[in-house]
Amino acid sequence: MQTGSSKDQAIGSQGFLTKLVEDIFEKVFVRSRDRESKVIEFKPPADLENILDLTLKEPTEDARLLDICHDVIKYSVHTGHPLFFNQLYGGMDQYTMGGAWLSDALNTSMFTYEVAPVFTVMEKYVVKKMIGLAGMEFGDGVFCPGGSIANMYGLNLARCKKYPEVKTDGMSRYASLCILTSEQAHFSIRKGAAFLGFGMKNVVLVKCDASGRMLPSDLENNINRLQAEGKEPVCVVATAGTTVLGAFDPLDKIADICCKYRIWMHVDAAWGGAVLLSKEHRILMSGIERADSFTWNPHKMMGALNQCSLFLTKHKDLLTESHSARAEYLFQQDKFYDVSYDTGDKSIQCGRKVDVLKLWVMWKSKGDNRLESAINNAMDCARYLSKIINSREGFRLLLQPEFTNICFWYVPLSMRNEEENDGWKRRLSQVAPAIKERMMLEGTMMVGYQPLGDYVNFFRVVLSNLDITEEDMELVVNNIERLGKDINPQ
Amino acid sequence: MQTGSSKDQAIGSQGFLTKLVEDIFEKVFVRSRDRESKVIEFKPPADLENILDLTLKEPTEDARLLDICHDVIKYSVHTGHPLFFNQLYGGMDQYTMGGAWLSDALNTSMFTYEVAPVFTVMEKYVVKKMIGLAGMEFGDGVFCPGGSIANMYGLNLARCKKYPEVKTDGMSRYASLCILTSEQAHFSIRKGAAFLGFGMKNVVLVKCDASGRMLPSDLENNINRLQAEGKEPVCVVATAGTTVLGAFDPLDKIADICCKYRIWMHVDAAWGGAVLLSKEHRILMSGIERADSFTWNPHKMMGALNQCSLFLTKHKDLLTESHSARAEYLFQQDKFYDVSYDTGDKSIQCGRKVDVLKLWVMWKSKGDNRLESAINNAMDCARYLSKIINSREGFRLLLQPEFTNICFWYVPLSMRNEEENDGWKRRLSQVAPAIKERMMLEGTMMVGYQPLGDYVNFFRVVLSNLDITEEDMELVVNNIERLGKDINPQ
Ligand SMILES: Cc1ncc(COP(=O)(O)O)c(C=O)c1O
Ligand SMILES: Cc1ncc(COP(=O)(O)O)c(C=O)c1O
Repeated sequence: MQTGSSKDQAIGSQGFLTKLVEDIFEKVFVRSRDRESKVIEFKPPADLENILDLTLKEPTEDARLLDICHDVIKYSVHTGHPLFFNQLYGGMDQYTMGGAWLSDALNTSMFTYEVAPVFTVMEKYVVKKMIGLAGMEFGDGVFCPGGSIANMYGLNLARCKKYPEVKTDGMSRYASLCILTSEQAHFSIRKGAAFLGFGMKNVVLVKCDASGRMLPSDLENNINRLQAEGKEPVCVVATAGTTVLGAFDPLDKIADICCKYRIWMHVDAAWGGAVLLSKEHRILMSGIERADSFTWNPHKMMGALNQCSLFLTKHKDLLTESHSARAEYLFQQDKFYDVSYDTGDKSIQCGRKVDVLKLWVMWKSKGDNRLESAINNAMDCARYLSKIINSREGFRLLLQPEFTNICFWYVPLSMRNEEENDGWKRRLSQVAPAIKERMMLEGTMMVGYQPLGDYVNFFRVVLSNLDITEEDMELVVNNIERLGKDINPQ
Repeated sequence: MQTGSSKDQAIGSQGFLTKLVEDIFEKVFVRSRDRESKVIEFKPPADLENILDLTLKEPTEDARLLDICHDVIKYSVHTGHPLFFNQLYGGMDQYTMGGAWLSDALNTSMFTYEVAPVFTVMEKYVVKKMIGLAGMEFGDGVFCPGGSIANMYGLNLARCKKYPEVKTDGMSRYASLCILTSEQAHFSIRKGAAFLGFGMKNVVLVKCDASGRMLPSDLENNINRLQAEGKEPVCVVATAGTTVLGAFDPLDKIADICCKYRIWMHVDAAWGGAVLLSKEHRILMSGIERADSFTWNPHKMMGALNQCSLFLTKHKDLLTESHSARAEYLFQQDKFYDVSYDTGDKSIQCGRKVDVLKLWVMWKSKGDNRLESAINNAMDCARYLSKIINSREGFRLLLQPEFTNICFWYVPLSMRNEEENDGWKRRLSQVAPAIKERMMLEGTMMVGYQPLGDYVNFFRVVLSNLDITEEDMELVVNNIERLGKDINPQ
């Protein structure tokens, strides 16, 4: 007995943890302000498996384990680095870090007030604040493990609002339920439709304008067509800030149509939601107050650490009605406190990680105003980067960005002043991957690329780190030019 | 420009974070080894909202914010405290904490090798190890945000295996698909059935024996009955370690039946999975190697921090087949490294938090053996606690525990030696809530209670903290006796 874990393993002697924290300060956080340091020290999978001693079996001395942790740090991507533009998250802020670490240390779960008293009331305040920023008078909400799952909540609530009996009876009676979203929408709508039993083919993709915004006329045409075919649209998913182009669907017009046809309107503002904090830019989302529900990921543009996503809705009790299972072992009604604070049954989860504190601490520290100016700064940087790209030889914008996704091609020297026929496009499609490879091996910066419809591979620089500057934007262009100008794809 | 966040807000000056970390060491971690300290300083919701300054609007000075964080610590539940027995998780280990903090600091997402190289290969090793412990030769797996969602993966894979076209076509053609699980199964099976479009009523509850284990004969009867009614069972969910009683369904016998009727067998080992690490106790799960898939939550019995859950399956490519949406902006096929390492499309999520490191660091430190003895220790403590309960006046075991859930009633002095009729039972049902209230207000310990079927409210002590001792077991009984002996419910 008591051999369970020898006492020097317990948190009592914190030698390992203390040293690891020092390393994190010295080896991770410094890189987030040192533009000369590498974003990544790339190794291919097989090499990494060789370098890291990953097998689990024997116990390991602290010193050796710390060495391995150094390698974990060394070979991981430093997403807090100012030149990490690869994803819709990035940046490093000591307040959100503090909130995350304290949540880890308090290690609890959001199901009941009993085990998460502080975080339950905190979540209430944050939800209210965000509902208010969207211009809704009241509502409800819940932190979800990612925007994809938050979007699935939107689909499920739309379905349960119309047909509450689906919860017990299943989808079998509803051959015809479908979802409309734009062709630029995030893939989680299709994943969600598959998972929830709608089926991917029952996600109807509405056309977009040249900027990637849903065309309301095509939405209405599709609704009419579907209804004529005997299908029943139960949810329209608009996007505020599309993943690739950063486009904002025209929410007000979409709301008119949803109103007219009485269809649930969900807005995927996972990426764009942060503009609600900016008096200058919130106009991009006007109409959001008319939505039934929306998704907002503060771990993207707002700089909170992963995972930090909310599903929010103006319908007061629908989360609970749609998801509750009333487990007696958790949600006893004879508790001595107000059990309406046991909010776990709103969720499809049972244990639910505390994601509120990392957002709350950061927000409390900065206040609305500093968050607002940080977001305005990112928008300014986006404009500045577009301006440089427009004026620099060899660079070509896909389109004028509405948001902080800056999409562009780089045409190397060998390909300029040539006829831009199919062969040329085929060659151009090889440029971004080739530059990306060099960039990764050099490790100085990370930017993503992808094709989109008729557009061959282009770069997408995503600004979500709130500490970036105009000089960083110049580095982006200079790096790509330096890495790519001599490329000559065949 | 550059006003985004003033530079003293960035991680460069880490004054706030440094102080908060000191506080966490002094105010959180100490409690995890000080049995005299409180588990909780309980305040009702309204009081807590008054005490904590939760509103978000103005910026806040670091000193003030640290004060609020102290209150967050003060009024939160200390789940690392040795006398926290309220949930199926608890305990505090510096290695898992280190892994969690380092994951936060590196803040990335599991979708591609590109942004999570180390964690992608690490996840591969951990999945392989766990698949191996289950006695499967090969397989696949993925960390999920909780066991509930892992169970939903099981349901979806079962469905997609039988009817791959459900992914595109939806559930409408399949009026008759149903799921069988025991009446003691976790509520996530019903939540999952609702969310995935099966419908809650298509979860058929199989009867259990007196210990809470699924009755294979009743399973087979139900399958026959359902088939006769034209229904189609697509998944049997067995439980290894039920939530309330800690019972292990007879996996081998269930596997025989699933084999015979060709039905997918998913095992919810969220709670019990840890016994696979113990040569002495893994017999509880014999038959697991024959399952198609299983759920295992290392954040429960193994002591990893929340969230840490896996879905594991012996079917090699089915996760990807069932969930992929092939987003071009993430999963480009023209990358310069082996894109089979881009594992994000296995998941229903897009961004996926790094949950592997908190498990890996802990496991690497302790090795299999120290984990094994910790689990054996918890089992020994459970036996010891049952023994005390059996011999102490006023305490009454519900049943001899198979695992580390010890369920019992406490009969206060006023109710002993009375006829145990319905009135007596009604009075008994008030005892646990009354003691729980006193316990919470005193703050010295946390234990849950619930009714179950015909059993009125009873205590459930759950041992998942791996550092507990026999003395702690004595404290459990002494505390309940002290708090409850004078209770006289009417
Ligand atoms: C048997 C069982 N399965 C599944 C779960 C759900 O796990 P999670 O809380 O991680 O969603 C639980 C939670 O207690 C459980 O006891
Ligand atoms: C528009 C949009 N919606 C939803 C998501 C999904 O969010 P998550 O990655 O948190 O699941 C993304 C992710 O990039 C997104 O860009």
